[in-house]
Order: sequence, then C-alpha cells, then structure tokens
Amino acid sequence: MSQIIAIDIGGTQLRAARFAMDGQTALQTRRTSTQGDGQTPFERLCDLITNILPADQPVAGIAVAAPGPLDPYNGIIFSTPNIAGWENFPISAKLNERFDVPVWLGNDANLAALGEWKFGAARGHKHVLYLTISTGIGGGVIIDDRLLAGTRGLAGELGHVQIMQGGPLCGCGQRGHLEALASGTAIANFVREQLAGGEKSSLSRRAQISARDVSEAAQQGDALAIHALSRAGEHLGQAIAGFLHTFNPSIVVLGGGVTQSGDLLLAPMRRTLEASVMDKSFLKNLQIVPAALGDDAGLMGALALAHTMLED
Amino acid sequence: MSQIIAIDIGGTQLRAARFAMDGQTALQTRRTSTQGDGQTPFERLCDLITNILPADQPVAGIAVAAPGPLDPYNGIIFSTPNIAGWENFPISAKLNERFDVPVWLGNDANLAALGEWKFGAARGHKHVLYLTISTGIGGGVIIDDRLLAGTRGLAGELGHVQIMQGGPLCGCGQRGHLEALASGTAIANFVREQLAGGEKSSLSRRAQISARDVSEAAQQGDALAIHALSRAGEHLGQAIAGFLHTFNPSIVVLGGGVTQSGDLLLAPMRRTLEASVMDKSFLKNLQIVPAALGDDAGLMGALALAHTMLED
Repeated sequence: MSQIIAIDIGGTQLRAARFAMDGQTALQTRRTSTQGDGQTPFERLCDLITNILPADQPVAGIAVAAPGPLDPYNGIIFSTPNIAGWENFPISAKLNERFDVPVWLGNDANLAALGEWKFGAARGHKHVLYLTISTGIGGGVIIDDRLLAGTRGLAGELGHVQIMQGGPLCGCGQRGHLEALASGTAIANFVREQLAGGEKSSLSRRAQISARDVSEAAQQGDALAIHALSRAGEHLGQAIAGFLHTFNPSIVVLGGGVTQSGDLLLAPMRRTLEASVMDKSFLKNLQIVPAALGDDAGLMGALALAHTMLED
Repeated sequence: MSQIIAIDIGGTQLRAARFAMDGQTALQTRRTSTQGDGQTPFERLCDLITNILPADQPVAGIAVAAPGPLDPYNGIIFSTPNIAGWENFPISAKLNERFDVPVWLGNDANLAALGEWKFGAARGHKHVLYLTISTGIGGGVIIDDRLLAGTRGLAGELGHVQIMQGGPLCGCGQRGHLEALASGTAIANFVREQLAGGEKSSLSRRAQISARDVSEAAQQGDALAIHALSRAGEHLGQAIAGFLHTFNPSIVVLGGGVTQSGDLLLAPMRRTLEASVMDKSFLKNLQIVPAALGDDAGLMGALALAHTMLED
C-alpha cells in the first residue's frame, strides 16, 4: 500500500516522518539540522527525504509544513525568516522534480490547526479556532470541517490583528498586533522595558531575558513576571473574544511554548474573555483546551493535509 | 414550477417578494409596517405572506432575513431590539405551522453577504468580505463559496471586534468595538461630544444630529464633520486590514447608508488599510467595491439562502 511522507521545515531543524496510508503512528522518523555541511537547506531536505523513502512501497505524496508566508495553492514559499535564499522559492515544483510524486505545501500554523482537528485536541469539532503562542503567534481556523485558506492561501494570520492602536512594534512592522502584545517575544520585551524603567524583579540580574525566564520567575512568585504574563493573558482573552464573534467556534485550542506558563497566563485570559464577549451565547458549550500534538503539530498537520488532498 | 417567498424583517418594515424558482427578478413585492392595527408583528407577517402567496403554483419554501442574534440552524430569533416579544422566538417553526412549507432563517447582514456573492457586487468571487455600515456595523463572510456561520450560526459579527482598548461604549455593552468607532451612531456621537467640548461647526445649531447630517455638513466643507468621517474611515481601514489577515478575501463589499458619504469616508479608509497590511500580498488583485443590492440586500440574501438550501 502507498505511504505518505510528512515534512516539517523549521529554521533550525528539518523533520520527516513516514506513515502508512491509513496510519497515524509514524513508521519511521528522521531529523537533521536545517543548515550545515556545505549543503543548501534544500539539498539537506532532499537527502532527508531520500533517507526516509520506503524501500519497497510506492509514495502517495509528500506533504510539507513550512513557516509562512507562502502560497499553498502553487507550492511557493514567499520568504522564510531563518532560511536564506528561500525567497519566492517554488518548493513543491522543485521537490516534485526530484521525487516525481505529488507535493503539497501548507503554512505550519494552519496545518497545526488541521492536525489538531484531525488527530488531536479538536477531533470531532467542525468549527475550530487554533492559536500557537511562542516566539510569534500563529493561527489556523477550521470552518465546517475545512481549513480556512483564503484566495491566495494567506488567511489565518491571527497574530496580526491590531488590538492596541499605537501599541508596541510587531515583528511584521505594524504596531499593536496581538503578536506584539502576547507572544513570548512581547512578554520578554515588556519585562525588559519595565526593568529599564526601574521596576524591581529577580530578573534584573540577567543579561538576557526570554519568555521562559519570565515564566520561571513568575512561578517563583516574582511580581513583575506575574504581571507580564497576566497582561499577555488579558490581551489574548480580548483577542479571542473578537475571534469568537468572528468565527463562533465550538473549541479553542491553544498551543506553543508560552502556554506552558499555565494559569499564570490562562486564568487572566479566561477572565478577560468571559468579560469581553458581546453575548454569553458565544461561550455556550465552548471548550478551551491545550493543544495535544506538541512538537509533532507540524508533522501531523502535514499528514492531515495529505489525507485531505488524497480524499478530494 | 415552484416559487420562492423571500422575507426581510426590519424594526419598522416587513418586506416580502415572490420569485420564480430560477428567477432573480421579483414576480411580486409587498411591504407593510412591522407594528400596527392591533396585530402582533407575527400576525402582520403572516398576513403579508398570505397576500403574496402564488395563486396557482406550489411554494418551495419561505426564506427569512432577520436582525440577529439568531439561530439559523433551528430557526430561532434570540432577540430583536425593535420587536417586543420576540425573545427566543421560534419563527421558523411558527411559520411552518401556518404555511406548511420549508422555512429558512438567516441573520440579515450574513444574508446580505450571501446575496452580494450570488446576485450582486461579488459575483464570481469565492472569498468575500462584506460589511454594512449604518446605525450599527454588520458583517458577512463567504469562504470558498460558502457562508461563514459557525457552530451556532453566530459568526460574522465583524462590528464587534475591539479596535480601541477602553474606547467608546458599543451598542452591545462592550467598549472600543469597530461599531462604536465607525458606525453612523458612532460618527454622530463623536460630533456631539466634540460640540459639547466647544468645537465649532455648522452642526452646532441643531437639536439632533444624525450621521446623515454629518455627511451633508462634510460635503458643505464643515471641518468637524469632515474630521468625524475621516476618523471613522481610518478605524474602518484598520479593522479591514485585520480582516484581510484573517480571511484573505479577493473582494471587500461595503454597504449601508454611511458608505454614501463616499470618499470623505472611503479615501481615509483606503489610505489606512494600505498602510496597515502586514504584507502587500494581501492587497494583490484585491477589489474594494460598493454593495450593489441596496435596500434589496435582505430580500435578495433571503433568495440566495433559499437557493443554497434547495441545492443541498
């Protein structure tokens, strides 16, 4: 029976997994660093795929999760912050030349949403809001059992809605976006600014401060760190209220490293969310749950994409 | 051949139109006031329908556009600001009892989007963002040729995303929503506040000020009125940028009386929108156009709903 190759492209690691057509457990997994050994990232990707191809089975297709912005319909990565040379990179056509099987491409956050819907925390739900909160904030939305993609496949950039006019600078160059107020980067930036303004904290002795440092300090009772997480949670709750009004999902799935801070982030999020909906009917039977796929979200999302494409 | 009855329920008027199964031009239209003559609004609605039923043809169904919030799946109007007694009103079941034909219900702004997609300004587009800007701000979204409805049919409340923390009070009770900053009500409120604060304007002699008054004064060159429309346009542009990131539509359709102000509102909207997208690819081939259906948006939207239901 045919097999499926799933790929997750990151700035530091390339991951691959091989699945049976009807399987959800990888038959084999491999990973390698994205950069190194005098090879281009694309050469390293091709080697990784070659090494995981089945010995004696046909391949139904290769599904690739990659950081956006990208064009999933034409298989083109517009740019990838951490991979030099991948500007307007036609990855699907290039992989197709090398392996002569169908290649499907998707934005990693969108595919993580698809993965959570098909294999993870949102199984059985038809309307899913997914947010991943780490260095940045990515999103994915399932509407009536289908992934929201938009006319050019750019939809679901939920980290980039403005929630504070004139707010902090976002990684995208705009101001006051959700990502600029509630991502790991935003949390660390806020703490650094407060320290520079004279706030006292156990973090003031550190040369560098990450969101993980803030989370650990908050768990030790540091008031500034607790405030930083609480503030991020409130912004998140406000934004999610708007997403509920927009999409009316039955489940909200929250992934990404920053959500590991738990109730220090999520209790203020829930409190603000509940106070911010225009009508309680948006909360009726609503589930808010952690993502289930963890680091495998990209690979499982790519597998879900392959299933979706093969079903059509 | 069967015919379709389309109904548009408003706080002041009830409208009905009768269509051939494959027709887009009404065979007959009727209207009546929502209140009056010692009858309940529901009795008046039933009389209106009775008077427009075809003499010698079967009826395929009755499609109803009504102000939300409502449950389109179960045909229940949760509440209607201007019609007393319609709390949790099972309008579809009640009409079905009286007329013994299928009854379909939809939120009027959502159905206006569906109407513009099927019969109006957005024909041929698969991904449509529709906003109607009048007393309030309503929205509707077409994704991949399907109306966004959500798990309980409450989706598309695009007037109720927060764009200014701690901003003006919204009709829904929350603060800083798009509706509280860019609707006709918001524009008139802003002018009244500025006048109360001592601003000079040709409008200062008026006892009451409507958005239409502001629009007329702006067209006469009144600086405060021009500022009020420009400010609303900027908020609208900022919000639409977020909606582009969220939905990545190929067309934005703007309806509602406030858009009659034209470039006084729309030029600042476009300028802010273009400056606020995270990437120019969201603007590529994007059309921004006025709604085509005008006052018939509700009726034509109801007709589009009937077509959609009969095709399924």
